[in-house]
Amino acid sequence: MNTDIIEKPYVVGIDIGGQTTKMGIVDMRGQVLSQTVIRTDTHTDVQDYVEDVADALTKIIAESGSEGKVRGIGVGAPNGNYYTGTIENAVNLTWGGSKSIPFAELLSSRMNGLKVALTNDANAAAVGEMTYGAARGMKNFIMITLGTGVGSGIVINGEVVYGHDGFAGELGHTCAVRNNGRLCNCGKTGCLETYCSATGVARTAREWLTLSDEPSVLRSLDSISSKDVFEAAKEGDKLALKIFEFTGKILGQSFADFVAFSAPEAIVLFGGLARAKEYLYQPIMDAMNANLLPLWRGKIKIVFSQLKESDAAILGASALAWEL
Amino acid sequence: MNTDIIEKPYVVGIDIGGQTTKMGIVDMRGQVLSQTVIRTDTHTDVQDYVEDVADALTKIIAESGSEGKVRGIGVGAPNGNYYTGTIENAVNLTWGGSKSIPFAELLSSRMNGLKVALTNDANAAAVGEMTYGAARGMKNFIMITLGTGVGSGIVINGEVVYGHDGFAGELGHTCAVRNNGRLCNCGKTGCLETYCSATGVARTAREWLTLSDEPSVLRSLDSISSKDVFEAAKEGDKLALKIFEFTGKILGQSFADFVAFSAPEAIVLFGGLARAKEYLYQPIMDAMNANLLPLWRGKIKIVFSQLKESDAAILGASALAWEL
Repeated sequence: MNTDIIEKPYVVGIDIGGQTTKMGIVDMRGQVLSQTVIRTDTHTDVQDYVEDVADALTKIIAESGSEGKVRGIGVGAPNGNYYTGTIENAVNLTWGGSKSIPFAELLSSRMNGLKVALTNDANAAAVGEMTYGAARGMKNFIMITLGTGVGSGIVINGEVVYGHDGFAGELGHTCAVRNNGRLCNCGKTGCLETYCSATGVARTAREWLTLSDEPSVLRSLDSISSKDVFEAAKEGDKLALKIFEFTGKILGQSFADFVAFSAPEAIVLFGGLARAKEYLYQPIMDAMNANLLPLWRGKIKIVFSQLKESDAAILGASALAWEL
Repeated sequence: MNTDIIEKPYVVGIDIGGQTTKMGIVDMRGQVLSQTVIRTDTHTDVQDYVEDVADALTKIIAESGSEGKVRGIGVGAPNGNYYTGTIENAVNLTWGGSKSIPFAELLSSRMNGLKVALTNDANAAAVGEMTYGAARGMKNFIMITLGTGVGSGIVINGEVVYGHDGFAGELGHTCAVRNNGRLCNCGKTGCLETYCSATGVARTAREWLTLSDEPSVLRSLDSISSKDVFEAAKEGDKLALKIFEFTGKILGQSFADFVAFSAPEAIVLFGGLARAKEYLYQPIMDAMNANLLPLWRGKIKIVFSQLKESDAAILGASALAWEL
């Protein structure tokens, strides 16, 4: 294996999102040598899409001078199944739909048999953080991605938990509010992600603006995003600050239950909303510690991703390929 | 290792409870060859207690003719830490108190260096069920023990999850009722075990009898135990049946969140309250499936322990010793 690393010191990381697909060539220290982006949503047929991915990859492999030196390809994709290498019922992908797509196999055969490992984006982020980021040296941690939804990747004894079917780690769909909770895209109510994702924060803002007369700079906006709430908080807007306090409290309450499950050393936060760390950290800590068993109180760390945001998705996916 | 198994085909299992300590000699098929019980709570000094355990063990080892054929000793104990072999702050043990007791080391040196593995009783039960019981062949399952409290042992990829500190799997202290939940012994409120343990069921009965005028055979009793509720349910008592429905619903709701964590093949139920399976099974299933992501609905099994109840604690502890 050591010889292999010397001869093939690079990996490819591919992050498949609903709109765009990012890919890059990464070395062992987590440097992205070359990267590119293609559209995901201009294809309805997965074969066409795989062609485009392969063409783009071949180009950046040539650009970076890494022909013949690539060990493997890691892919982060919605509903990606690590065990089977398939993308399952990914309704947010134009070519995904309600079927099982053998993506790893399709890409591998188009890339001259290069090995392909595939998992969902949150699991990929966890591996990335463990390989290059805030979780280096940790063997037990939980990655929480705060983006459009809330994703999670759970690492126990240095390994991502995939469960009996490959789909473990759906902590965004654990119940944060049992009664009269918000309706989630998944069809359930009260899911953590309906409160603590970027869309959840915007939803809280809209709800609270309707329910109270409290003055806020947010009132002047036509539509509200989590970024608007963040900007308002930075200006000292009280309602915006309270929204982050509320969001952090719900996260912290849920985190306490996650700790009771796997006793992680830390919970690592990543994603757009994690940028609001100065407003989220203390409410999360307070609520988590208030809901932890005494034996864990004050002992579980909350840390924020250390990966450069523009590279993180590629790095996370690429890290999977080192394990091939 | 194979030679070792032929030459040393037995293990010892010790289950330390607050009142009594059960121990037995077990063979590879999970047969208990010989067993005995001593008091736990007549000792205030752990050294005296270890002496008594060792004397009792030496006796049953001789009785069963297994001198020199014992591979190791497995111990299930409250607050047992697998990593360190210590029993930590076990307030329910007369010799436990608020300290860390190096129990594995003490027992091993008293038993001529026989290796000792130690964990909490729910983790031991999980290993027992995987080795001899309902979870044979399963690599991903969650063991839930419904006794005085609610304990749990989580198995992922065939291994018990101990977490970064050895204390993972405290699912009895995850939050079942967020607001105005019942006060738990741990100091928090709303913990699963305040509703779904044997004491939780009795508590529900007392609460409901006070809050309503509904007729029930339970009204004639001076004090109510979960066994009384079980007996009443068997006689068709409507209130008792509703209590089990309520208990099952809360369990099922919590189980759905546990599934989102580790995607187990099954949840295995064990302990006194699990005897009420005919009243608990359907409410658990209904509530769990209603709260699961669609991808898991109808796919996660609820199974009940297959170990003989009188042997189960010893078997669970003994199973740990095969891994030494």
